[in-house]
Amino acid sequence: MSIGGATANTTSLLRVMNERAVFGEIFRMGRVSRPELAQATGLSKPTISVALADLERAKLVRAVGLRTGNAGRAALLYEIRPQAGWVLAVDVGRNYVRVALADLVGDIVARRDEPARADRPQDLIAQLAGIVDALLAAAGLTAVDITLSVFGTPGIHDKETGALRLAPNLPGWDLPGSVERLAEVAAAPYVLENDVDLAAVGEGAYGLGQGVSHFVFVSIGTGIGMGVVIDGKLYRGSRGAAGEISYLPVGEGDPRVNAGRGMFESVASADGVVALARRLGCPAGTAKDVFDAARAGDPVAARVVDAEVDHIAHALAGVTAVLDPELVVLGGGIGAQAGDLLAGPVAERLHALVALRPPRIEVSSVGRDAVLLGALAVGLAAARDQVFERTVTLG
Amino acid sequence: MSIGGATANTTSLLRVMNERAVFGEIFRMGRVSRPELAQATGLSKPTISVALADLERAKLVRAVGLRTGNAGRAALLYEIRPQAGWVLAVDVGRNYVRVALADLVGDIVARRDEPARADRPQDLIAQLAGIVDALLAAAGLTAVDITLSVFGTPGIHDKETGALRLAPNLPGWDLPGSVERLAEVAAAPYVLENDVDLAAVGEGAYGLGQGVSHFVFVSIGTGIGMGVVIDGKLYRGSRGAAGEISYLPVGEGDPRVNAGRGMFESVASADGVVALARRLGCPAGTAKDVFDAARAGDPVAARVVDAEVDHIAHALAGVTAVLDPELVVLGGGIGAQAGDLLAGPVAERLHALVALRPPRIEVSSVGRDAVLLGALAVGLAAARDQVFERTVTLG
Repeated sequence: MSIGGATANTTSLLRVMNERAVFGEIFRMGRVSRPELAQATGLSKPTISVALADLERAKLVRAVGLRTGNAGRAALLYEIRPQAGWVLAVDVGRNYVRVALADLVGDIVARRDEPARADRPQDLIAQLAGIVDALLAAAGLTAVDITLSVFGTPGIHDKETGALRLAPNLPGWDLPGSVERLAEVAAAPYVLENDVDLAAVGEGAYGLGQGVSHFVFVSIGTGIGMGVVIDGKLYRGSRGAAGEISYLPVGEGDPRVNAGRGMFESVASADGVVALARRLGCPAGTAKDVFDAARAGDPVAARVVDAEVDHIAHALAGVTAVLDPELVVLGGGIGAQAGDLLAGPVAERLHALVALRPPRIEVSSVGRDAVLLGALAVGLAAARDQVFERTVTLG
Repeated sequence: MSIGGATANTTSLLRVMNERAVFGEIFRMGRVSRPELAQATGLSKPTISVALADLERAKLVRAVGLRTGNAGRAALLYEIRPQAGWVLAVDVGRNYVRVALADLVGDIVARRDEPARADRPQDLIAQLAGIVDALLAAAGLTAVDITLSVFGTPGIHDKETGALRLAPNLPGWDLPGSVERLAEVAAAPYVLENDVDLAAVGEGAYGLGQGVSHFVFVSIGTGIGMGVVIDGKLYRGSRGAAGEISYLPVGEGDPRVNAGRGMFESVASADGVVALARRLGCPAGTAKDVFDAARAGDPVAARVVDAEVDHIAHALAGVTAVLDPELVVLGGGIGAQAGDLLAGPVAERLHALVALRPPRIEVSSVGRDAVLLGALAVGLAAARDQVFERTVTLG
């Protein structure tokens, strides 16, 4: 039967609702006994038993032995069957692609990171497809085993045209229909999300954002962006463009000078850092060179870092005034790698710019994996619903 | 009985829940028949009849005759009894105080606006208490009839100290305990909210924000602030400071020059407009003079308006980058009165600063009443709960 469908009757609908509640609680609680499930759901023990039997028959849940060490009778424990579903998480960056294959409880069974071949969309698609094949082979799975894929990319997915907007770092993806080619990477249903939004979700699920209601994840690297979490949920804005802080009016000069790039991004991204260093006479090849030189005591590099601190503090003054977040997490290539040079001075500078004590500013604890972990978290939540729908309500 | 209390039993609890559902639907639907209530709540017609009888006995609901003009049997109609509760809505501004007394369906029965005597808190309290006495007398009510009062003030209510923070336009209210003196104005329970937050609620309930999920209300006048509505609900931030855009780093100079005032506020508020006009040689007494002169074709005044447009556009570039709202409503003294000179040029300027098409920018349709109407909307929602709790669950 299908929930809400014409053939649903009260008894079977209730049964499916109970099973869904039990399935959800096992996800939340991990290994759990029947009495614990009864208490958590408010359902009777006989109802729990019926639900568990159905979920075991559907191969979504399995018994895992007895809990020992407690007084009284040992309780039989149940847990999610990890192989009940598989999630593919993909971080599509300008410089790196990161791909992970995880089971339904989120354990990563195969993973590969590679420098991106991102000059042309077709090269990137081919690269990703190759990685996915290798991961599936390593895990002893085939493409049909994947329940769901989640791709994190820069920019905004324009669903009407199938193009990526505001993603100047991914050449070629602004053409209509380019996004649909991701279906070639994995046959399963896929979800596309903004990479920095996913990073915020990843930080919320696995990092410093755990238990924080209102926080932002500010990604500074090749590009600049921000993921906004409000009441524990990702906030996307009216067109998916919330947190596009690369366009904040921060820094000198005309915002239109760097075509396709925002004012803040053009001064504070990796390119902006390198450009300023060169202008001041420091022959840096990469932003990392500049931060390394600053750590080694180079006075010109220190001036570049100081300018970076100033730009970030001004941007965060705007973010703080609008959102009043509890926590600002710095991430991305620069945010995570040079966070030690930035977080303290930014907090200090920010203090002079805002009305109240500034929010906490901390460096991401999940680092370069933020996007990948966010894709995993989004994928797991959706895959759990999908395997339940597929096996229980259609079974 | 008390819901959730030790004496609750299932039957009486269900009965109260049903009555609450029926009471809520009548608020939502206005005049309504028993069959309509049965359809809207999913409850049986006998259950509806029992609930209506209880609600009538508690004087919360009344029968208002038959619906005519339809085929079939005429249906008896029910509506909220307007006199079942009274709400006092108060807009405490630096220049004006506005007070309205409304019945439980939101009809304003008495109202008074006066220039504020705001130099000292005790004068303002005495003024408000006098107005409330006059309004009660005009409506034939006494202080005990007021179910709830809602005060909108500048700044943030610091609940720990009982002081108003960030309200430089209300001298004396930054002292500990000053907020508690509002209890002298009306004996009833009271709620204190930021005035611009209430303005956003007012615009959402009665103005351009109706049906818009994500919008901001930008108030520009004596002070500057913003109310943020996300998913149709007011968003306050982690410390109630969301939308404090007076502190946006916009405009020239050091943000600390104007003690207690933000950078954006110091250039774009009424004082900032007057100061720039004088600096350019235009002897304006008030911001209104400047905008009037600009409408009359004065070239210096036009330059001042142009600077104001530029400041607002830069502030909104930040707001748009962070929140991606669907709609920006301009309000406050300047926003509402000079909106005709500002909205179009701001939208045009903003277009060059942001990544996507800018959000719609419109002038508040509730104008100077935004804060008062927001206080009313907040008060009505809370008063409805209160009269129900008081008369039904304690009855």
